[in-house]
Amino acid sequence: MAAGGMAVGVIGLGSMGLGVARSLVRAGFQVHGCDTRGDVLESLRREGGLPAASPAELGARAEVLVTLVVNADQTEAVLFGPRGAAATLRKGSAVMTSATVAPDYAAQVEERLGRLDLLHLDAPVSGGAAKAAAGELSVMASGSPEAFEKCRPLLDAIAAKIYRLGDRSGQGSQVKMINQLLAGVHIAAAAEAMALCFKTGVAPEVVYDVICGSAGASWMFQNRVPHILAGDYTPLSAVDIIVKDLGIVVDSARKSGLPLPLTAIAHQMFLMASAAGHGCEDDAAVVKVYPGVDLPPAAKR
Amino acid sequence: MAAGGMAVGVIGLGSMGLGVARSLVRAGFQVHGCDTRGDVLESLRREGGLPAASPAELGARAEVLVTLVVNADQTEAVLFGPRGAAATLRKGSAVMTSATVAPDYAAQVEERLGRLDLLHLDAPVSGGAAKAAAGELSVMASGSPEAFEKCRPLLDAIAAKIYRLGDRSGQGSQVKMINQLLAGVHIAAAAEAMALCFKTGVAPEVVYDVICGSAGASWMFQNRVPHILAGDYTPLSAVDIIVKDLGIVVDSARKSGLPLPLTAIAHQMFLMASAAGHGCEDDAAVVKVYPGVDLPPAAKR
Repeated sequence: MAAGGMAVGVIGLGSMGLGVARSLVRAGFQVHGCDTRGDVLESLRREGGLPAASPAELGARAEVLVTLVVNADQTEAVLFGPRGAAATLRKGSAVMTSATVAPDYAAQVEERLGRLDLLHLDAPVSGGAAKAAAGELSVMASGSPEAFEKCRPLLDAIAAKIYRLGDRSGQGSQVKMINQLLAGVHIAAAAEAMALCFKTGVAPEVVYDVICGSAGASWMFQNRVPHILAGDYTPLSAVDIIVKDLGIVVDSARKSGLPLPLTAIAHQMFLMASAAGHGCEDDAAVVKVYPGVDLPPAAKR
Repeated sequence: MAAGGMAVGVIGLGSMGLGVARSLVRAGFQVHGCDTRGDVLESLRREGGLPAASPAELGARAEVLVTLVVNADQTEAVLFGPRGAAATLRKGSAVMTSATVAPDYAAQVEERLGRLDLLHLDAPVSGGAAKAAAGELSVMASGSPEAFEKCRPLLDAIAAKIYRLGDRSGQGSQVKMINQLLAGVHIAAAAEAMALCFKTGVAPEVVYDVICGSAGASWMFQNRVPHILAGDYTPLSAVDIIVKDLGIVVDSARKSGLPLPLTAIAHQMFLMASAAGHGCEDDAAVVKVYPGVDLPPAAKR
């Protein structure tokens, strides 16, 4: 189905949300957006989108909307808070929530929206800002066939891969949790391996090449270690995001009676980095918690 | 330089050593081999190699030899023990040691061989039995230029990638330690992620596909999770190998004053698996330490 000027909404215009809005404009949708920050609304307008003053105002204009906010608290506020979108969306409209949240919460959202005759897609995304802007996100989605049907044109415009993980909300978030468990542990492992490398005095660039071609390779090692080697901790994804995500993973698993010892330690490593003042730096800054290690300085600009 | 019938030796004819011997025969070397097991010596003979009764006998026949034994104790025994090779090798010959050992130990081997006018290459390998048989191992090597020169024909015959990591023994083993740190943590992380998956009830095959295409991917996740999904713990590389390797990593780092919290926990997970009776199973069997998780049964043969 072509976009055909269908009215869609994007709530949360951070690096991900603005990229998604841009992809939707490019695909021919009428794109409404809202955010608490005036400057990003101005960016949206320049990109061809239509700023809304609140989620409620946006809900009155769009029939499918996606929330790309930081966490469950913000998801709750933009949907069900004062001036939230749920109260103004027309019956039969669909909401796709994409923050990393606990599976239990995603299931609740589906139920509460359902009572308002609204559809819900539990649809966490991965891929980062660049993929968002290119319309090439990976979406780990679950929800009713009706919700998939309603969201399909929007999904096609923003995603390169759409994984359909089940018929009810919560399953998408469960898979996202598994991904975040691995992502977080792998970043901490990459940091720990490089700390050992700096201690030994073997050339770190050579070690990077060897590992990327060996059984010790991971997507995160390959992606994050260059930040450490360049001494560049400009946040592409921040330490505090991992603190949040691994917290959700460990808490959710505990509720189902499952211990996650490795994840729990990785979580503590990121907490240590955050407590030491690095929470807003790139998540590769977890390497700074290893004491007595001489890290590469920032390259001169 | 072509092999030209040069006499080389392989000490330790396990799955790696026998594959290496086969590659050397194929490349035109005169290949001497020894092992404590009579049946593998017979396999060597069938492959075109020449069994030796002891490392000492082999040392008298070869001018370059490679040890592919399990650990430092065995390396010590085959080189410096009674009937060890070091005593019989002609001056100027070279020994390439490929077990995963502590960097300190590799440096000692170089010094002790040097006193006998023998060259040493610290040359841990990665790639597994299939790559060994194909002559396509990755070798993480360090040593003197003379040692590299002497071992070059043999290296060319057994390796697809030769990383030259420094001019003295110990540096190759340092990089191998970094690789094993990551390999071990990633196997434990893969097991922990799949334990969470089995708890949630999302289809594990789908989760496997999603993760392999997402930021949570690792070489080990991709390689080991199929063993878990098939319920097949036939050891390609055993739990006890990781127990040994992560032990070396944590001990060596401790000597240099570096804590490795994530690696230490991963090490404990493999120790738990070993203590529960799974030490000789495939290292993916670390997933069995997670309590209350229903693992996929073995497929029917």
